[in-house]
Amino acid sequence: MHQEQRHPTHALLREKGIDQAIFGRRESITWLTGFAPPVQTGSNPFAAGNPILWYDRGEFTLIVVNQLETLATSFGDEPDGQVISYAGYTLDSPIVSSQNLLDAFHTIATIHTGRIGVERSFVSDLITGPLERSTIVDIDGWLEPLRMIKTEEELAVLRRNFALTDIGHAAAREAVAVGKREIDVWNAMHEAIQAAAGCRVPVGNDCIVGRRQANIGGWPEDYELHPGESLIVDISVVLDGYWSDSCATYYAGERSALQAKLHQTVRDSLDFVCSLLRPGAVCGEIDHAVREFIAEKSGYPVYPHHTGHGLGTSGHERPRIVPNSTDVLGEGMVVAVEPGIYLPGETSVRLEDVFLVQADGVEKLTNHDIS
Amino acid sequence: MHQEQRHPTHALLREKGIDQAIFGRRESITWLTGFAPPVQTGSNPFAAGNPILWYDRGEFTLIVVNQLETLATSFGDEPDGQVISYAGYTLDSPIVSSQNLLDAFHTIATIHTGRIGVERSFVSDLITGPLERSTIVDIDGWLEPLRMIKTEEELAVLRRNFALTDIGHAAAREAVAVGKREIDVWNAMHEAIQAAAGCRVPVGNDCIVGRRQANIGGWPEDYELHPGESLIVDISVVLDGYWSDSCATYYAGERSALQAKLHQTVRDSLDFVCSLLRPGAVCGEIDHAVREFIAEKSGYPVYPHHTGHGLGTSGHERPRIVPNSTDVLGEGMVVAVEPGIYLPGETSVRLEDVFLVQADGVEKLTNHDIS
Repeated sequence: MHQEQRHPTHALLREKGIDQAIFGRRESITWLTGFAPPVQTGSNPFAAGNPILWYDRGEFTLIVVNQLETLATSFGDEPDGQVISYAGYTLDSPIVSSQNLLDAFHTIATIHTGRIGVERSFVSDLITGPLERSTIVDIDGWLEPLRMIKTEEELAVLRRNFALTDIGHAAAREAVAVGKREIDVWNAMHEAIQAAAGCRVPVGNDCIVGRRQANIGGWPEDYELHPGESLIVDISVVLDGYWSDSCATYYAGERSALQAKLHQTVRDSLDFVCSLLRPGAVCGEIDHAVREFIAEKSGYPVYPHHTGHGLGTSGHERPRIVPNSTDVLGEGMVVAVEPGIYLPGETSVRLEDVFLVQADGVEKLTNHDIS
Repeated sequence: MHQEQRHPTHALLREKGIDQAIFGRRESITWLTGFAPPVQTGSNPFAAGNPILWYDRGEFTLIVVNQLETLATSFGDEPDGQVISYAGYTLDSPIVSSQNLLDAFHTIATIHTGRIGVERSFVSDLITGPLERSTIVDIDGWLEPLRMIKTEEELAVLRRNFALTDIGHAAAREAVAVGKREIDVWNAMHEAIQAAAGCRVPVGNDCIVGRRQANIGGWPEDYELHPGESLIVDISVVLDGYWSDSCATYYAGERSALQAKLHQTVRDSLDFVCSLLRPGAVCGEIDHAVREFIAEKSGYPVYPHHTGHGLGTSGHERPRIVPNSTDVLGEGMVVAVEPGIYLPGETSVRLEDVFLVQADGVEKLTNHDIS
């Protein structure tokens, strides 16, 4: 798994004169190894922190707390991968997982370079002993350009994920009714996704009625849907460490003439942006064009958030479709596009589809009903 | 909120000659401030990492990413508390939250001491600039003894939490049937808890049929319940950053004579341990007595895990009821007790209640049906 990610990483580090490196950012580790620790209740209570990935001239060693070791088995079977674990919970002795992680790291990492790459914000606590005598090169962010282009293996995970995401939206659409609460819709959506997946699956983002949080986003709460009210349901499913994204707007009862007009305008803007997504397109220019389309078409205020973004081992990554972005679209990139129109306290609509950029156009990965 | 936690912390640090300190462990920050960031989809994608709490001679400053600032409002209203935020997501510029956090920290933290307390495993990346010239005292773990005794404010959150936990168990019990899957039971339980809470609530632990994972624990998956099979449902609900715990064993259809006998033995052992929980009791001795009770009563193998543990801002903390533990119970401690009998591949039972230790006995905080 994920050799296609490790090869260009190895090439990049070699080119930069880095023989050894430590990765600690969760997104980097999932991207390089396929290992995806569960997150639903926060970080592992018996682990010293995130897992660590040690790079030494083309070889990658994942250091992970023993309770999660079975999730890393397939990476350990790779020719350039190995897994070592440290004790988190122990029955008979104090829980000292920080120290155990440090000990495990020093067991396998023989520092032979004066210049070492480190995702510094995530693993600074490892910089002790011999590492203190090395020159630390902060490599946080180095993988982001590489992560933009998805491999076939990643696309396979994303396609399975988007199938679940579609199931969640169908359940949400079905659950929306006058008197239902945001949390009721969320529960129906999350239950449908987990029932289909056959396991726990983290789900994120927004589920809010059109009268709060400036109608834009927020976690579902105890708010009832009033007749004619809009409900923005923006779902990211996290499957095997990979994020989907998607948004639809539902209505409690009949939508008003205004809502119908706004909804159609946003649908048209999605069709429009779809026509702009091609290799070579500059993201800042796409962002500008979509905002202009919305403003000219409707005369309503332009959305205050991004037009779109990449996704993969995180829910928001490059290429970012934001003002002034110089990111250039390329074949194999996956981008979410999510225009909206917000009339705070009154109503709102946001629709989001996700596209795979191809040589001659795009493939839509989302297939939820946005009508 | 949580002044009762900050006062003894201040006293402890002063006694140890520490004028300034940085807390980074999530459990410490929730315990000291009441601030509890959401965790359901992993750490905030736009934050540099965990929030940071800066201590300076009795004053506490919480540094938090701007998207979560509203969750910290009540702490900012405290006489000894303030909140500052840094930009995570930005529309018009690159996302550099690590740097923004560091800048925010240096804005408010004027280092005037040669000796600074740091929860080192969690915030080492802040040790730059003036801090590099200070003596770093690793204070990770210093709060754990203080965290054992719960305040009335904490008990109020825990009581609300246990009411939700009971609701979850009732839904799980109702959902168990031949042909249902682990994930179906989990969904019913989680939905009931969130519907009652009116918001998303993280839920952790185990939901497994009695033929896998040595019958002890694991996340719910796509396994169907066979006739007569046991299902261990071990639930921790995380409400406002505080963890509950609880376990019951359910059966698909009629329980066998063996299952009934094991179940009764474990219930008896819970009654027995309840009689041992009093101020002054040594946890290692309780652990020994319960194991002996199970072994003598049933002749079956003694459970391979802990007998019990404290809970609060984490799901497993001191006092630990494990072999050789020298922790001593005191009034105001909350302990979970969870004996079990496991016959791998055959059947198993675990029951767990949680108790508040009082001067003259205990109050049971769990009220789910363990029959």
